[in-house]
Amino acid sequence: MYLDNINSPKDIKKLNVEKLQTLADETRNALINKISKAGGHNGPNLGIVEVTVALHYVFNSPKDKFVFDVSHQCYPHKILTGRKEAFLNPEHFHDVTGYTNPLESEHDLFTIGHTSTSVSLALGLAKGRDLNGRNENIIAIIGDGSLSGGEALEALDYAGEYNKNLIIIINDNDQSIAENHGGLYKNLKCLRETNGNFSNNLFKAMGLDYIYVEEGHNIKKLVEVFNKVKDIDHPIVVHIHTIKGKGLPYAELNKEEWHAGGPFNPKDGSRKIENDESENVVFDSLKELLDTNKKAIVLNAGTPMGLGFVKGVREEYVKRGQFIDVGIAEENGVAMTSGIAKNGGTPVFGTFAPFFQRTYDQMSHDVCLNNSPATFLILNPGVYGMNSNTHIALCDIQMFAHIPNLVYLAPSCNEEFINMFKFATTQKKHPVAIRVSSNMVSSGIEDKTDYSLNKNKIEIKGSKIAIFAVGILISMAKEIAKKVKEKIGLDITVINPLFLNDLDKNLLENLKKDHNFIITIEDGEVQSGYGQTISSFYGDKDMKVKNYGISKAFHTDFDPNKLLEEHGISVENIVNEIINFINDNE
Amino acid sequence: MYLDNINSPKDIKKLNVEKLQTLADETRNALINKISKAGGHNGPNLGIVEVTVALHYVFNSPKDKFVFDVSHQCYPHKILTGRKEAFLNPEHFHDVTGYTNPLESEHDLFTIGHTSTSVSLALGLAKGRDLNGRNENIIAIIGDGSLSGGEALEALDYAGEYNKNLIIIINDNDQSIAENHGGLYKNLKCLRETNGNFSNNLFKAMGLDYIYVEEGHNIKKLVEVFNKVKDIDHPIVVHIHTIKGKGLPYAELNKEEWHAGGPFNPKDGSRKIENDESENVVFDSLKELLDTNKKAIVLNAGTPMGLGFVKGVREEYVKRGQFIDVGIAEENGVAMTSGIAKNGGTPVFGTFAPFFQRTYDQMSHDVCLNNSPATFLILNPGVYGMNSNTHIALCDIQMFAHIPNLVYLAPSCNEEFINMFKFATTQKKHPVAIRVSSNMVSSGIEDKTDYSLNKNKIEIKGSKIAIFAVGILISMAKEIAKKVKEKIGLDITVINPLFLNDLDKNLLENLKKDHNFIITIEDGEVQSGYGQTISSFYGDKDMKVKNYGISKAFHTDFDPNKLLEEHGISVENIVNEIINFINDNE
Repeated sequence: MYLDNINSPKDIKKLNVEKLQTLADETRNALINKISKAGGHNGPNLGIVEVTVALHYVFNSPKDKFVFDVSHQCYPHKILTGRKEAFLNPEHFHDVTGYTNPLESEHDLFTIGHTSTSVSLALGLAKGRDLNGRNENIIAIIGDGSLSGGEALEALDYAGEYNKNLIIIINDNDQSIAENHGGLYKNLKCLRETNGNFSNNLFKAMGLDYIYVEEGHNIKKLVEVFNKVKDIDHPIVVHIHTIKGKGLPYAELNKEEWHAGGPFNPKDGSRKIENDESENVVFDSLKELLDTNKKAIVLNAGTPMGLGFVKGVREEYVKRGQFIDVGIAEENGVAMTSGIAKNGGTPVFGTFAPFFQRTYDQMSHDVCLNNSPATFLILNPGVYGMNSNTHIALCDIQMFAHIPNLVYLAPSCNEEFINMFKFATTQKKHPVAIRVSSNMVSSGIEDKTDYSLNKNKIEIKGSKIAIFAVGILISMAKEIAKKVKEKIGLDITVINPLFLNDLDKNLLENLKKDHNFIITIEDGEVQSGYGQTISSFYGDKDMKVKNYGISKAFHTDFDPNKLLEEHGISVENIVNEIINFINDNE
Repeated sequence: MYLDNINSPKDIKKLNVEKLQTLADETRNALINKISKAGGHNGPNLGIVEVTVALHYVFNSPKDKFVFDVSHQCYPHKILTGRKEAFLNPEHFHDVTGYTNPLESEHDLFTIGHTSTSVSLALGLAKGRDLNGRNENIIAIIGDGSLSGGEALEALDYAGEYNKNLIIIINDNDQSIAENHGGLYKNLKCLRETNGNFSNNLFKAMGLDYIYVEEGHNIKKLVEVFNKVKDIDHPIVVHIHTIKGKGLPYAELNKEEWHAGGPFNPKDGSRKIENDESENVVFDSLKELLDTNKKAIVLNAGTPMGLGFVKGVREEYVKRGQFIDVGIAEENGVAMTSGIAKNGGTPVFGTFAPFFQRTYDQMSHDVCLNNSPATFLILNPGVYGMNSNTHIALCDIQMFAHIPNLVYLAPSCNEEFINMFKFATTQKKHPVAIRVSSNMVSSGIEDKTDYSLNKNKIEIKGSKIAIFAVGILISMAKEIAKKVKEKIGLDITVINPLFLNDLDKNLLENLKKDHNFIITIEDGEVQSGYGQTISSFYGDKDMKVKNYGISKAFHTDFDPNKLLEEHGISVENIVNEIINFINDNE
């Protein structure tokens, strides 16, 4: 196997160009070996094998520098840069992360997971090179799906006036996670269909030089083109047509399903673990809204599956004009949502929590300053969300709870979510955001809370000690109360804040009468989180407050329950804390 | 005067099209009357008078809906929609704000001040219209400068697949606040020079229909074109060539200086108030850095004057490759900054605080996750920044202080800024952001703090009571200490935190020995601000803490000192608070 002798990109250069396709086949096999056993990003990596082999054959990494957009397509790059064991040998699968990682290799420049960043970061590397008087090649590799993101479009535009070496590889497989959205994809299609010769060209219109490669899996052609652009003295777009999922017929056929996923049988693509077909409370609520309110509409930004609108489901609502995927373009999605609310619609915008980071300004300025009565679903925030440092979302409360006019709700169970969603989509006073934990389950009890009252919910009424538990942590708080009762016979109070944007000051005042210790627990960062607003309220009162939450760090690859425990958020620790407090104060 | 009879857009329609130029001249005179006496956005409004008259002549506002981007060019629109008194009569100048404002008129849809939002918001209005089965025209009016912003580019792209009525007016005066930056401006130039016929067309490449109008001040032509696109059944870009500052020769000649400013003599453009030529500590520090470190570079996003790099100054540094204006494209600016730091440069990115809201994700993911040692200058945050609700920035601490790896510094005086800036641009461990208050002045004392130690600074050592004052509020804290000493003979402690990203826990522990009351004051929102982190630290200790800051609201048109006072942040109130505390506790 050629791959046996490939321990760094230098080893690839020893091969005759004729041998590279064999190396690519071996690389693809190594890739399939791992993704079929351990899961991962299938389609993006299968489609970029030949491009990666050719890039490393022509350019000299780490002197020349690659920036992979999202970096979920970096597996072949890892295989070819000294990390093949992590793909060949199951014992080493966990030696590498699913994204580029400078801690693993000098061939990785950035820890990256969000989309549309590569051209900006590459422009920065290029400018850093210029300031140092060096001359290495800087290469951004960006998929067609990422092009619609504002950061990428801003960077392409700026690259159009930059005047030194920068190579922008557009890996065009005509697919985002789901299908692409936006007018620019019509232009990419025209360019593909005319071998790059279509008269109107988005990249040229942005001032960029341009070259097209139809055969994105023909290594010889790729090597030829890369040799041509190597050491170029100005920015150029190399638009390469590839096939997402290349090499696995079922993945080529069903690109959305095979974007990413768990283990599968490589022979036929049958899944080793069946897809979770369990109830989806978010989808059910959205569907009911759309079916009963013809002025309602659901929007998302490139992640329709997050809301349960998988292929085969969303088409009907698109036809009705009640479902929009704006593509990877969160800023536009959020601002459009504000506009819809201002002109008589009932919009709901939802995406995963880390991607909401793109929308802070739109949430504040376009939505909340205008007090547009729209609903936002922040999916999978907190420790139970994605657990890679590239995708963690431990700061959603920090980002949103302080924005004026925004009602920020944290359901502790499905039933509360259902009722909060009804409240959000029927009121016309404020924007409402709901943080939807992936760990949320049914409580079995219908929720009849009137959310217009802005009141916390007393789950258990006790005395002396009260626990405020945010969202899904309420079950832990109840367990703590049970254990305290068992151990020392004391009934403590458990409070579900429901609202995170403000305090229920009456309740807090009342607690002073018969409580002297408040514990807050939340599943995100403790600094500037929910609990600290309670500490501040009681700061000059005779009430002790202890805030539990996660420390400020880009935590990664953690077990959520262990991470909570490491930060003292466990039944055992908090029960002990309470018993100690009682012993010290009685 | 025709204008006498114009009380709503309906009145304009009564005029023969031949009379419209006279109405436009009168409108321009009303505009000049106000801006020459009271200041404001000169160039953008002078350049859009004819377009506005023609728009209101053809379309039927408020049924048809206009969204003005940034909305700083809405003065003629205000004059023609029932608000002319606010331009003609100095007593009524303050009846209207400088931006569109739904509280003033049914002809204004949004409260808007940030750039690049109009196409998204208009798309939302259009979609809301569709859901309601109505058929009004939706018109976005966006300047060329705003086109480079990610939100605008995302929206143009999405508009390219939207399939109902949407009219996008590009008001192209070939100028942002400063000159434009980005490759797309080469395309606009080609389009202007070919009467819109250049083969490569950015808007068409995004899937949009397109029409060009060279004579942007010829009302008859404008009316003709607007009549053509009225009630169109798909999105279209109407690209109009206008002259920024039209009608005032000096403003047409020097577009950057006449973008906005204070009162002037309309005859010759002489300023009634001389420009502030006083020291600019930010510029001086940046200049020294660039002149002594050839690998250093200053970046900004469309606001070079904010850093003191006015026209005539920045050209030299651009030539040296040490100054970049990326145009209105904050996301790209921040991500590029990360890339430069990763490849051996010493980058500093700075812009005004409200515009940093666009960069939360880039600050967190592109910069801080990668721990890139770059410097960020957040200009004019807090109550002394811009005081319109469209531009307030009371939440910079909320946005930034909690992000892992970021060192967030608050200088209280010029000397601390100088030293912090030196620290930031010479260390290689972390990204560092500095919040630079417009109210910052010299203390007259050189700052020799070692900022690598992460320690708060004890300005005055006392006992019993300590005040933590953020940044420029330290002078108020010292005044409080002086007054307390005078009134009750007590020496209290005054602490300058310097760092807002973390607590100086040793210091806080030590304070417990001889203090029992802490007061925190900050010039931004109190919820999730700096003070609450101190409340949390002492939450379960025998220390009382009171946090002072601004309430959560989109405050507007405030006097900063009064706003502070209304929130208890005044020498008198806090001195009383301290005396009461002492009386109650001794």
